This record gives sequence, structure tokens and C-alpha cells, in this order.
Amino acid sequence: MKALVLERIHELSLREIDLPSVVGAKDVKIKVDTVGVCGSDVHYYTHGRIGPFVVNEPMVLGHEAAGTIVEVGTEVTSLKVGDRVCMEPGIPDLNSRASKLGLYNVDPSVVFWATPPVHGCLTPFVVHPAAFTFKLPDNVSFGEGAMVEPFAVGLQAAVKAKILPGDLAVVIGAGPIGIMVALAALAGGCSRVIIADLQPAKLAIAGRYAGVTPVNIKERALADVVAEATEGWGADIVFEASGSVHAYAGIFGLARPGGCLVLVGMPVAPVAIDVTTAAAKELRIETVFRYANVFDRALAMIASGKVDLKPLITQTYSFEDSVAAFDRAAEGRPDDVKLQIKL
Amino acid sequence: MKALVLERIHELSLREIDLPSVVGAKDVKIKVDTVGVCGSDVHYYTHGRIGPFVVNEPMVLGHEAAGTIVEVGTEVTSLKVGDRVCMEPGIPDLNSRASKLGLYNVDPSVVFWATPPVHGCLTPFVVHPAAFTFKLPDNVSFGEGAMVEPFAVGLQAAVKAKILPGDLAVVIGAGPIGIMVALAALAGGCSRVIIADLQPAKLAIAGRYAGVTPVNIKERALADVVAEATEGWGADIVFEASGSVHAYAGIFGLARPGGCLVLVGMPVAPVAIDVTTAAAKELRIETVFRYANVFDRALAMIASGKVDLKPLITQTYSFEDSVAAFDRAAEGRPDDVKLQIKL
Amino acid sequence: MKALVLERIHELSLREIDLPSVVGAKDVKIKVDTVGVCGSDVHYYTHGRIGPFVVNEPMVLGHEAAGTIVEVGTEVTSLKVGDRVCMEPGIPDLNSRASKLGLYNVDPSVVFWATPPVHGCLTPFVVHPAAFTFKLPDNVSFGEGAMVEPFAVGLQAAVKAKILPGDLAVVIGAGPIGIMVALAALAGGCSRVIIADLQPAKLAIAGRYAGVTPVNIKERALADVVAEATEGWGADIVFEASGSVHAYAGIFGLARPGGCLVLVGMPVAPVAIDVTTAAAKELRIETVFRYANVFDRALAMIASGKVDLKPLITQTYSFEDSVAAFDRAAEGRPDDVKLQIKL
Amino acid sequence: MKALVLERIHELSLREIDLPSVVGAKDVKIKVDTVGVCGSDVHYYTHGRIGPFVVNEPMVLGHEAAGTIVEVGTEVTSLKVGDRVCMEPGIPDLNSRASKLGLYNVDPSVVFWATPPVHGCLTPFVVHPAAFTFKLPDNVSFGEGAMVEPFAVGLQAAVKAKILPGDLAVVIGAGPIGIMVALAALAGGCSRVIIADLQPAKLAIAGRYAGVTPVNIKERALADVVAEATEGWGADIVFEASGSVHAYAGIFGLARPGGCLVLVGMPVAPVAIDVTTAAAKELRIETVFRYANVFDRALAMIASGKVDLKPLITQTYSFEDSVAAFDRAAEGRPDDVKLQIKL
Repeated sequence: MKALVLERIHELSLREIDLPSVVGAKDVKIKVDTVGVCGSDVHYYTHGRIGPFVVNEPMVLGHEAAGTIVEVGTEVTSLKVGDRVCMEPGIPDLNSRASKLGLYNVDPSVVFWATPPVHGCLTPFVVHPAAFTFKLPDNVSFGEGAMVEPFAVGLQAAVKAKILPGDLAVVIGAGPIGIMVALAALAGGCSRVIIADLQPAKLAIAGRYAGVTPVNIKERALADVVAEATEGWGADIVFEASGSVHAYAGIFGLARPGGCLVLVGMPVAPVAIDVTTAAAKELRIETVFRYANVFDRALAMIASGKVDLKPLITQTYSFEDSVAAFDRAAEGRPDDVKLQIKL
Repeated sequence: MKALVLERIHELSLREIDLPSVVGAKDVKIKVDTVGVCGSDVHYYTHGRIGPFVVNEPMVLGHEAAGTIVEVGTEVTSLKVGDRVCMEPGIPDLNSRASKLGLYNVDPSVVFWATPPVHGCLTPFVVHPAAFTFKLPDNVSFGEGAMVEPFAVGLQAAVKAKILPGDLAVVIGAGPIGIMVALAALAGGCSRVIIADLQPAKLAIAGRYAGVTPVNIKERALADVVAEATEGWGADIVFEASGSVHAYAGIFGLARPGGCLVLVGMPVAPVAIDVTTAAAKELRIETVFRYANVFDRALAMIASGKVDLKPLITQTYSFEDSVAAFDRAAEGRPDDVKLQIKL
Repeated sequence: MKALVLERIHELSLREIDLPSVVGAKDVKIKVDTVGVCGSDVHYYTHGRIGPFVVNEPMVLGHEAAGTIVEVGTEVTSLKVGDRVCMEPGIPDLNSRASKLGLYNVDPSVVFWATPPVHGCLTPFVVHPAAFTFKLPDNVSFGEGAMVEPFAVGLQAAVKAKILPGDLAVVIGAGPIGIMVALAALAGGCSRVIIADLQPAKLAIAGRYAGVTPVNIKERALADVVAEATEGWGADIVFEASGSVHAYAGIFGLARPGGCLVLVGMPVAPVAIDVTTAAAKELRIETVFRYANVFDRALAMIASGKVDLKPLITQTYSFEDSVAAFDRAAEGRPDDVKLQIKL
Repeated sequence: MKALVLERIHELSLREIDLPSVVGAKDVKIKVDTVGVCGSDVHYYTHGRIGPFVVNEPMVLGHEAAGTIVEVGTEVTSLKVGDRVCMEPGIPDLNSRASKLGLYNVDPSVVFWATPPVHGCLTPFVVHPAAFTFKLPDNVSFGEGAMVEPFAVGLQAAVKAKILPGDLAVVIGAGPIGIMVALAALAGGCSRVIIADLQPAKLAIAGRYAGVTPVNIKERALADVVAEATEGWGADIVFEASGSVHAYAGIFGLARPGGCLVLVGMPVAPVAIDVTTAAAKELRIETVFRYANVFDRALAMIASGKVDLKPLITQTYSFEDSVAAFDRAAEGRPDDVKLQIKL
């Protein structure tokens, strides 16, 4: 089967490759329609690794996908041929201790698309467990379906925050994930989100959404904006979505007494935190690893109109132009949010 | 001072009455601008009592109010003369065990406006603790400010439900409280609300809001609608907001395994529940008593545009026409949501 | 294989019966050592049904079991031949929506030992999924291992209660489940448990445990005891473990403002509850269906000495005397807590 | 009135000093019986400051106290003359936003005994709000009553952890606070606590309690002990109670997927944390600032026998020997847990 293969660092090719095609009893086979280009895909392309995960042999990229079911396993009753679907790309061992607790995303044995040595989904057909395949509501397009995966990260952050209705949130970082977090926080109950970045283009995109207040931290101290918006009380929730080590300086000062800090971004180096400052407000700090049990929630929110992800799809490339899509993504243009590939 | 006084059952008069006017160190004095007419005010008018609370002597009505601060106590720093505000009508003993826990609404010693023998606020000036007086954002009108109290009941229900982003909720009853619950649930993170009633006029008002699906239970079984909307899984949350004993028949069947039932309506008689059915899904049942710590949240949601209560203000009467407003409210017209009185 | 078979209502026999013996890749085969006699087993014997579950064909009884692994499936790594274990008797579909959420006990497709038409474990060898088989710590006997299942019900109730350290709990009903709930509540953080019953023999057994205050409600009103113990504030948690409809009269009066009621007992008929009384205290009501994710916790508590279940094993019968054990259990002697059968 | 006065760094005197003595309407006056010597008292003595709190003028020390009520304010109904009591040493503004939420410990305006410039309680009589004064059960001695304050810190940590019954906890640091945390964790539902330190004397004291496993990290890697005790899964909860910067190295490796880290110790410098490692397990991190709403819980646990603090009272000095008590405390002998002063 043809696929977009990362041969090694800096080298992509669209070529034939042998991929598993057996449809197990609890699996479905999907004709892939749309695949989003994710920062992690690009990072493997440009750096050859992410932390302990190293590309040592050719690997198919892609893990944000939607398509149509073309075959179902013998025990599958929840889905049928012709269903339009999107796929949750991590497959845990459902018998594991973590999975039985409902925490399947932190099951150490999760197998995840396009994480070495596992192949991704930038190929015309994939086989996937029915339990991790979700039917698209009629009014959700394939393009939106392929946005569910990145939005799910934002939604997981919103779930972890334990938002109370009307909370004011700060989101640090207006990249794709920061915007997803902001939208999930608003749809998840926040009354207002203050989003901070250094790039005017990113802030402009985020600021188009109702309820989002963009702050360029080159121009104004975030702490001042938050203090003013909350009469000195502080934000109920602070989402760190930049992954920048610098974001941690003064971060506890943004939260209210009893507030919460959700760490979504993954800094490449350890960060220094002042425990005393966090403790003086008895802050809670939550961390996020991918997502669990939120794909259906994401789809419900998109279908009901609570979240509109369409403006975030910057451009769609053909499968043949996949390499061009990745090269564009690797440029990291500030006004690109999501590039997608249509197969 | 002039006030709308309930002399006894069925008898209202707008007349002079002696009311406390001393502004304590932690109090503010407010020139009342707008007061909403609540079902409980009307019930005292038409029935002379609510449960154990009996009107034995003349009582000023009204507890949904907004106005302008005209005097502040010596220790008040959070508010100043000229601030436009709304007031939380229950005053707990902040030294009580419940209050220290943050549950001041269930402090047995709460004193609440227009609950016998305590006077309400349908009078030009009231004195109130600063701690229970909330500044209106500039874009929130007095009329909306006076809607915060009934909306707070809906918001308390939404808080108790512990909504997860994207939850599907059912609201039983499309009266004023049912609509408040529906709006709070949506703003608080639900993707969609199915609201059920017998009255087409009420359902039409609720159905004007995005995300609300009205169901006339004379025409369709609510259980069928919920099953269809959730592929048989059930609603994440069921809010009972009708107070009807009949609403309890089959109510557990509407919820999903592990779901939640929030009891907002107060049936006049005990209701029969089948514990076995609730247990088979391990349902959680929450109850609601007024509200605590939500007025600021309500204002944040109104100010940010997440909740629009203006369409629910059916008509505004002058203070002189207060009795007419109450007589209209007593009619219980199905397309009246909220009548207000402007002083 | 020989097994204790319920042929039909009132008729038990110890005889040969064909039972599944294939050890799947994720299964283990266990030589059964000890099986406890549960009230539900007895109920099938004496009534032929429990609610919708009817004994229409011969069924092996027993679901509280411990034994030794004699064979492991090809994919099992967590257990090995010779391990002493106890078994969680419900097997859910781990691919189901409920299971993925960690709520596998409320997965509608759960298959449960000795629940018609599924055979139980009163037979020398059983095959069971490794994921629901738990290794006994060295200091936990087979007899205690077979007590894990009934204790797990109490533990699930304790988990649902969300006990805060130092809570005072009331347990209504001092039968086997009531005692399990009381011990789980104490080990789970309660400072004290007041347990209520009508039977002095049952109360005497419960009262032998430190921290348990038995109350004979024929002699003293439970409400008075609770009020005195809490200076009128009320219990933090009330566990209903009698299943008696009468227990619901005045039950909300036992709880403190903001308290919790956990329904463990299953009344045969609907119960009448006064919503207004529950709401005035904003009580939370939790329900319990078997258990999920607590067998490992139960074993940790038994092994560390936090819970001592040995005094609750009233008598142990040989496999040959199984019918006698059931006849004794059917007598319902008040000072019998748990009868066990050793194979 | 005579009092133990810290004149300035390194200089204590037992002398007359003017102290407030007016008993307000909601206050009580207490004849102090016993006061514990806390590490923070000693730190002001030896360093003259703790973080931003600097001893600039003479200050009475002491904040762990029990005594007998000798006078009650006009509005006090919950306590009476002659009641034996202990006192919660922080007095918040109950009208504040934090206090209304039940988070009065993080109210920025809290006034706390023996925190500059506020006087403490090492003096024969103190006046205190009734709302923060707690009656000792008959079987709780004054010495135990004066232990409630340090135990409350442990209890707050246990509350923040959201212990599930049967959790296995690690406590880093076996000083007085570490031991309090360990006891609170066990009484609060943990099945077992592994406590780590470098000092054999401290470990020996902790290890005398059932359920506590001491680990000398000079001899064995804590990670190995935890892995062995949990079959590689990790601890449910890790309490950091040493305040050592070194404790943070590898700390996330001790917790299970989905586990919790509670920061009780206050490192003097920022600590470096690896967000990626915490996120891979989706850990929750909680911080602790003193305590709120736990004094009554602590007393319930001591009275019921769930927690025995008596063995931790190393020696009791007379009021006249107060300076000697402080000099002994300043030595920091590893087998001293708590020194008390009897007035």
C-alpha cells in the first residue's frame, strides 16, 4: 500500500510499503479521507526523534484521521460499513490495571500511531479497533473529524482542570494546542479565556473567537492583565500550553487562591518551580498526557456548534502533495494553524 | 419607607413601613432599581405560606434585586458609592460550621429576604452585607442584574452536576427555573440540553436558545428521545426542574450508567423511587438548596455573553404598578418567564 | 466436573456437570480452595430468582472464591502457576463504553458468576480472566481471600461516599453487608461508625470492632444517638445497608448539612423520599452496584492489618457438606455472619 | 501579662508584656494549659525570619495550644466556661472571597499566632474567636490537644491527597511533620505508608506505628522499595514532607500512573521538575498551606483511638523553663519529636 513514509530524519517519501491489513474480530477497516499534520509528525521529520522515541527504521506518519468504514470485524456491532468515522490513535491494553481504572491513556503499553516504531495512518486504508473508532455526526465533515485528535488534547486539559461554570482561565501559548485548549475551556464552562503569546498572528487567530482575550506579552505583562480582569483575585485556572521554560517564571502569581494550573506543554528541560509560592495559594497542578474518553465528547461539541474548528484548517493538500504539506508545516508560519492532507 | 407589603394571604399593599436602615461597618446601602417577581413571592401572596414558612404578619416581598450603592460601611473596601450592584438575598452566619466549610447556603441560621418573618427588598432602599453584594460589569443592565438570583439557582444545579465538557443533559420542566438550569448547563459545559414539558409556549421559549432541544412529552416519550439522541446510552445528567411528582416515574431510565440526577424542583409530597434501578447504573443523586458562591460566576457569564437572560424578561412594571405585576404573575401565563418591577 | 448445582428452587445437588475448561490466552485456571456462601446464592436456592434473574435451568452456585493457579494462558504475565489468588466474579466487556470509563461494573454486558444463566464457582476448578484474578499476599489465608468479594461491596460503598478523614458514619443494618460497610468505612478514613439494627446478636458482633458503636433501634431512636454524638450537626455519611423500606423514614435527618447518603441495600419495593428535606441540607445520594477496581485495595487492607475479617467467618464446611452449609445459611441465624465451604 | 517573648533573633525572655485582653462578642478567653514548641517558633528564634515574615519587634511565641475557657463573649453559644479546648491559630476574615468558598486558610488577610507581627500564645491567658476554638473530648488530654495543630497539617495533606481506601502512600521525611502526615494518611484510609529518611532515630520512631514501613535511603533506594511493594506499579500517593530540594530528584518515578504528589515541605529554593515525566503518568500535584476545617476531624480521630499522638510528646517543660525548652528544640535532636510547655 502507498503511504507517506519517513525514511529517516529529513527524508520523506510517498511510496509502497507493507502494512498490516488483517481485520480482527473487534476491528474495523477504514478508507482514510483526511489526515492532519501534527507538530509531532513534523518533529520526527525534522529531528528524527521525540525524547526517548527515535526513528530507527522507515515509519508511516500521521495520526489525526477521519475516513469511511469499508469492513467490520465479526464481533463489531457498534459500527457498520459506510459509517463516516474518526479514530483515536492510541491503542491500550484494555486488560491493564490503568485501563480498568479508566486511565487507558497512561497504560504503559499503549501503542500509538506514528510513534516509533508504530506506523501512522497517512495511507489509503487502516485497520483499527472499533472501540477506538467514533462515528461522525452527519453535520461534521471529514476535515473536522481529523481535527478531533488535536482538539481532544485541549479537551483533556479542560477535563483535568475541573472547570466550574463561569471560571476565568488563562492560556499561555497561542499555537495550535493553546487555541484548542482555549476553545475547550470556553466550551467546557469557562466564561472567559485570556490567551498569551508573543506572535501577533497567532493571537489574531485566537482572538477571533468570542470570549477570548488575546494578550501580547511583549506589550503587556500577563500578570497585570489577569490582575485587572479579576480585581487582583487571580485566574481560576492557568493552562500552560507553550511548552516554554520561560512560561514558568511567575506562573503561580497568575492563579487565585485555591486555583489550578494545568500543564499541557512539554518543556524540553526541567523547569524551576517555587513550591512555597504555589503552596501559599494551595494551588493544584494537573498534568495531561494525550487524552482518554473524550473523542465522543469532542464530537458532541462540534456537532452541537459549541466549538467551531473549521477556521483553524488553514489549507488542505492532496495526498500526492504530502511532502509539500510537511515542508510547509516545517516552516512553522505563525498564521498556519492546521494543514491537512486529503487522500 | 414605602414598600410592597404582603399584609396577609391575598392582600398586597404599596405603603409606608418601618424598615431597618442602620448601615453596619460591613454593610452597604443600596438604592434599589429593579426587582424580579419570583414564584415564591407569588406563592406567599396566593397561599400565605411555603412549607414551614408562614406569613403571620405583614412582610415586604421581593428578593431578586439590583441597584446602586448610596452608602458604604466603615470597613467596606470592595465597593464604593455609585457602584451598580446586585444582591445575594441570603445572609448566613459566617462563623457557623457550614459557612466555614463553604456551604453557607445550608447554614441553618441563614436569614433570607422575603421568607417569613424577614422583609424583602421591594422598597427604594435596602441595607445589605457587602460580602453578599456584587458589582455589575458595565455591560450588564439592572434588569439582567435582577435576573442573577434566579439564574444562580440554575448555576448551583450545574455546579452540583459536576458537568464534564460535552455532557448531554436532560432538563425536566421548562418553567423559569427549568430554563435557567438549561442555560446554566449549556454555559457550564454541556454540548446539548433536551428540555421536556407539557406546555408548547414554554418549550417554544426554551427552544429559541442554541443547543436546546424541546420535547413535548404529550407528543413523544422523553425516554425515546433520550435513547435516540444517545444511541441507547442515556443522558450524562438529568435535571429534575418541574417539581412534579409524576416526573419521577422512569426518571432513572433517562440516565446513562454512572450518570447523575440533580433534583432542583421541590415536590410537595414524597416521591417513590426504585433504588434498585438507580443502583443498577450506580447513579449519583444531587440536591440543590438555593446557591452558594455563584453570583460572581453568574455575572461573569452574563458579561462575557455566554448566557443571555434578556429574552427572558417578559415585561417590566413600575413600582406603582407592583400589585398589578403580582396579579399578572399569579395568573401563571405559560409564555411569561420573568416579570420585573422598576423602582 | 463435580459441582454444587441448584437444580431448581429448593433443590440442590452435589453432582457431575459439564463446565467450560478451555483456558484462553488471557485466562488462568484455578484449583478452588474456599468458597463463601452469599445471601444471593441462598436467595436463588430459596426463591428461585432475584428480580429479573430467574433460575430456569440447573446452575452451579458460588461467587466468593479463593484458590491456587494451576494453569495460565499464553499471554498471561501477571500470574503464574502456584500463585494463591482470589477472583472478582464479574466479567465485563472491556471494549464497552462503561469499561473504558473505568465503570466496568455498570457495563450492561457483565457476566457474573452464579447469576442465571451463568454458572458459579462451587466446583474444584474454574477458568477465569487473569485481569480479574488477584494474588493473595502471603499473610492472607484462603478463607480471608474468599471474604474479599463481600468486603468489596463495603469498600465500593466507602469509595462512593468520598470519605474525608475523620468523618462520622452511620450504617443502617448490621447484617453481613452492613458489617462489611462499617469496617470499610473505618479503614477508609472514618473516625467512628454508629451501626443500627434490631437484632442484639448482630449488633454484638459488629460492636466487637474498635470504633463501632452499636445501637439497638428497638431501644433508642437512631436520630437521638446521632444528634448526641454530633452535637446536633448530623453524620457526615449515612450508609443504608439494611435494604429495608422502613429504614428510609427520617433517614435524611441523620445526615449533616452537605452530607452524603450511600444506598447499599436493595429494597424490594420503591421507597418514598422527601426531596425537600434532602434538599434543605443539599445532601448527595450515591448508589452502589457490586464494585469495580477495589479487589486489590481490599487485599492491601487485609494484608496490612487495617481490616480483620477472620472473626466474621462463622464456620467452614467441607465440599461434601455443601448442601448442609446452604441449609444452615437459609436458616438465617442472627449470629451467623459468613459460612464457607472448603473444597 | 507574663509571656515567652522573642526579643530579637537569638534572644528569648520570659517577661511581662501588654497583650490584648478584651473579649469580643464572638470570642472566648482561655487559660492556656499546654503549648507545643514548633519548628517555625524555633526558626524565628534562630533565624529571626521565615521568608517574608521578619521579627522586627518583640513577639510572643507559640501557636500549638490547649487550655480551659474562663470567659465567653456575649454571642457565644457553642462553648462555655470550664470547657477544655484547643485553638486553631489562624484567624481569617470570614467575609473574604476565600473564606466564603471554604478556603479560609488561603485568605490573604489571615492573622496567625506567632507570625510577625502577631503575638502567639505562650502566655497564661489568650482571647480567641469561638469559631476557631474546639472542645476537647473527655478522653483527650491537654497535651494531645496541643498536638492537634501539628497533626492538622498532616490531616490537611491527607485531605488534599483525596485518598482512596487502601491506597499505598510514600512519605518523604520522617521529621515531626512527616510523621504527622504518615499517621493522618493511615487513619485517613491508606493501607500502608512507606516513610523515608536518612536518620535512623527518626525512622525508628515512625516505624513503631502499625502500617508504617521505614526506609533509610542511605541504605536502599526508595524507588526500589516502592517498586517492590507495588509490583512496579508505583505508589498511589507521594507526600513530600522533608522540604529538601534533593527529595525532588526522581520523585515522579515513585508514583503510579494517575497518582498524586502532595507537597507539604517548603524547600527554601526553587526545585527543578521534569514536566514530561509527570505528564507521562498524568500525575496530580497538590500543595498544602496550613489547614482548614480539620481541627474537629483531628479531635474525632484522636478521641476514637484512630490516631495516637501521645508517643510523640518527647518531653514537657514548665513555663518557667520555656527558654530551656526552646534551646533544646534548637538542638534538633533526631529522637525529639515534640517538646511541650505546661503553663
